[in-house]
Amino acid sequence: MGERALSTQASAGASRLSVMNFLNEAANEYPQAISFASGRPAEQFFSLEGWLGAVPDYQAHAARAAGQDLVLAGRRLAQYGRTAGIINALIAEQLRLDEGVDCDASQVVVTAGCQEALALLVPALCRASGDVMLARNPTYIGITGVADFAGIEILPVECEAGENWEQALARTAAALRRAGKTARGFYLTPEFDNPTGTVLDEAERRSIIAGCLEHRIVVLEDNPYGMFRYDGESTRPMMALDPVGCVIYLATYSKTLCPAVRVGAAVLPRRLFGSEQAAERLRAEISERKSFVTVNTSQVTQALVGGVLLREGHSLRRLVDAPRRFYHDNRDVLLGALERAFGTDGEIRWNRPDGGFFLGLTLPFEFGERETVECARDHGVIVMPMTFFSLDASRRREVRLAFSNAGAAEIEAGVARLASYLGEKRASLA
Amino acid sequence: MGERALSTQASAGASRLSVMNFLNEAANEYPQAISFASGRPAEQFFSLEGWLGAVPDYQAHAARAAGQDLVLAGRRLAQYGRTAGIINALIAEQLRLDEGVDCDASQVVVTAGCQEALALLVPALCRASGDVMLARNPTYIGITGVADFAGIEILPVECEAGENWEQALARTAAALRRAGKTARGFYLTPEFDNPTGTVLDEAERRSIIAGCLEHRIVVLEDNPYGMFRYDGESTRPMMALDPVGCVIYLATYSKTLCPAVRVGAAVLPRRLFGSEQAAERLRAEISERKSFVTVNTSQVTQALVGGVLLREGHSLRRLVDAPRRFYHDNRDVLLGALERAFGTDGEIRWNRPDGGFFLGLTLPFEFGERETVECARDHGVIVMPMTFFSLDASRRREVRLAFSNAGAAEIEAGVARLASYLGEKRASLA
Repeated sequence: MGERALSTQASAGASRLSVMNFLNEAANEYPQAISFASGRPAEQFFSLEGWLGAVPDYQAHAARAAGQDLVLAGRRLAQYGRTAGIINALIAEQLRLDEGVDCDASQVVVTAGCQEALALLVPALCRASGDVMLARNPTYIGITGVADFAGIEILPVECEAGENWEQALARTAAALRRAGKTARGFYLTPEFDNPTGTVLDEAERRSIIAGCLEHRIVVLEDNPYGMFRYDGESTRPMMALDPVGCVIYLATYSKTLCPAVRVGAAVLPRRLFGSEQAAERLRAEISERKSFVTVNTSQVTQALVGGVLLREGHSLRRLVDAPRRFYHDNRDVLLGALERAFGTDGEIRWNRPDGGFFLGLTLPFEFGERETVECARDHGVIVMPMTFFSLDASRRREVRLAFSNAGAAEIEAGVARLASYLGEKRASLA
Repeated sequence: MGERALSTQASAGASRLSVMNFLNEAANEYPQAISFASGRPAEQFFSLEGWLGAVPDYQAHAARAAGQDLVLAGRRLAQYGRTAGIINALIAEQLRLDEGVDCDASQVVVTAGCQEALALLVPALCRASGDVMLARNPTYIGITGVADFAGIEILPVECEAGENWEQALARTAAALRRAGKTARGFYLTPEFDNPTGTVLDEAERRSIIAGCLEHRIVVLEDNPYGMFRYDGESTRPMMALDPVGCVIYLATYSKTLCPAVRVGAAVLPRRLFGSEQAAERLRAEISERKSFVTVNTSQVTQALVGGVLLREGHSLRRLVDAPRRFYHDNRDVLLGALERAFGTDGEIRWNRPDGGFFLGLTLPFEFGERETVECARDHGVIVMPMTFFSLDASRRREVRLAFSNAGAAEIEAGVARLASYLGEKRASLA
């Protein structure tokens, strides 16, 4: 892998990593600054002590299922276990109830967080020289990091004026073919995208599926924020709209429970491009890869998640109700503060996300590392330049605001500080 | 990575994987067979329920250390956390007390089991085309699997007659140079090797260090079995014998506590080949890679391990005492049974390991897939062909016997069954 990583990808990867280090340093250097940078879930809703108490519930369930006594079931839990996981059926049922993903246990591979699923899937899909990944632009840094370290190119797909997604994919696939390359996977977060907070509607999802089926591109449908909708109706997940089998659904318990469980899952289609054998081959391939990365996902934390799912009747709706209301209120506070600060400013714009943790703010000037430092140092507020998420260094005049982590008062104060910085900066540029 | 994986490595990798699948299938197909195949730790010594109770101990420790209240410390534990881990100081102290590894927290990267450390280190060390890994032959399958999937060649280093390790490494490095290749890492388990059960003495360890310093090869010193010595005195770990800094020490809690914690660690030298900056660069590189694989090791299971270390005064000696005695007895039972079955047989030989989970048995004929199936199906005992661990398909007349998992009566019966198969087979070949 070395040579490709060092040629085509290293510079972009290195610059992304340096931005990340830079942001961590900014947060450390200005600890009093209000941060809109972190998309961490709000930790006042974590109940680790209570959730640890669910491990014995799972143990009792496993004992019953295997006809073993509790002691033996406990020992088996502490031992090495099945590479693809042990709570697959519980996860399948939760995804069916909460997300409308119709799947069964045999389609599920439990992973050490959704990030491990990406780390396994990208090299499994892009095996030959010239195989590349696609993503929307900007996109989640977790997928670009995986591609960079695997030495696999990741390229943006964007609809040009008048194009639908099927046409954009056909144009992109043709351009790649001419360059001797083949798109193998398309990563996206259709519901409350990170970093933009936007949603793909059903027509867009169907158009992407049609294009991906046409060009045999596997969709990686990431859905960490689907349970955090504040307004309107959910669109069916792409996996549920996929008639032939090109969508792999990615789930995580980092936002609905807590990140420390490090439990996620990849849900493979029953048939991959219509072929049961192809689906089975990919499933075996990612299990084999997983056996050489994490061996199996911790059965302690699988039992914790499994026990909570058993207690909750397989649905996390009740548990996410309080954090969802918190994020909803935060979004409203943020939108209100932005409206008060910039409502009459024709040059500063933002979107109104119906859910999730993020929105994008468009500015009248570029906002990069220097501006981030000035803003943090002189005005006490940290935001994320959107270029951090960009695949082509575009989006220079945008920033991402995360509203999952701060409280209402902080959000109000943070927007006021941002407004004072932007006002000062604009005056200096005039 | 694709092309290299598919050319030089795929066939060896595929055959190793197919052997593994084949062995799993054999175990499933002949569930009544006694197994010497699995090197799993004995699960009657696991105390998952008790160890889960140590999570609040760690939480209290973390709260005191940060000057936080317990509730806030609990929330922080459940949140995303430091990529390199949170129990690094406790691990450093345990390794100092129990293994004689002199290190501090800043050298430790906590990983999702030792396997993740291998998955991060191998591609971090072998970055350029032509960079290869070295290993003893036969070797642990976890390192070959990592190399295969990363498309990195892994080659055997063996001492020829009259050579010491320094000379063998010089000869190997020169041969590689002529082929346009560079050895970057040397994986080994100096204390009770998997699969052979053998130990490298201090002179051998020093000779390897001298050769690796000379040729700038990083040693990956894996030590899962060091606390399971039954006879004689421990040799100092290679990290403690390394004057300049070429050894990375790999630790795991899978055998001392239980596999389900999925907690291991890589301990980097203070200076890598004498350079503090080089050590720091490698540490940053594997942390960055880890952030795109598992983000961070589960803080739930880190807290479990950390809590147990706090309870035990940072040493696991007391906890491993009972399993160590069990494995010791098993080794003696196995050696006794082998002596009774084959003691007068000039053609069947085995080594007498002073610790660990394994020994190697040499046979008068080849023992491969067919023999494994015959032995399991017709005689009810499963052993591991040593070719499974071989880097060059050598060792065809050897098998690995694991004595960590079966009880004494099973071991006795298993050897008797193996003797009956070997007798029958030898007669049929005569």
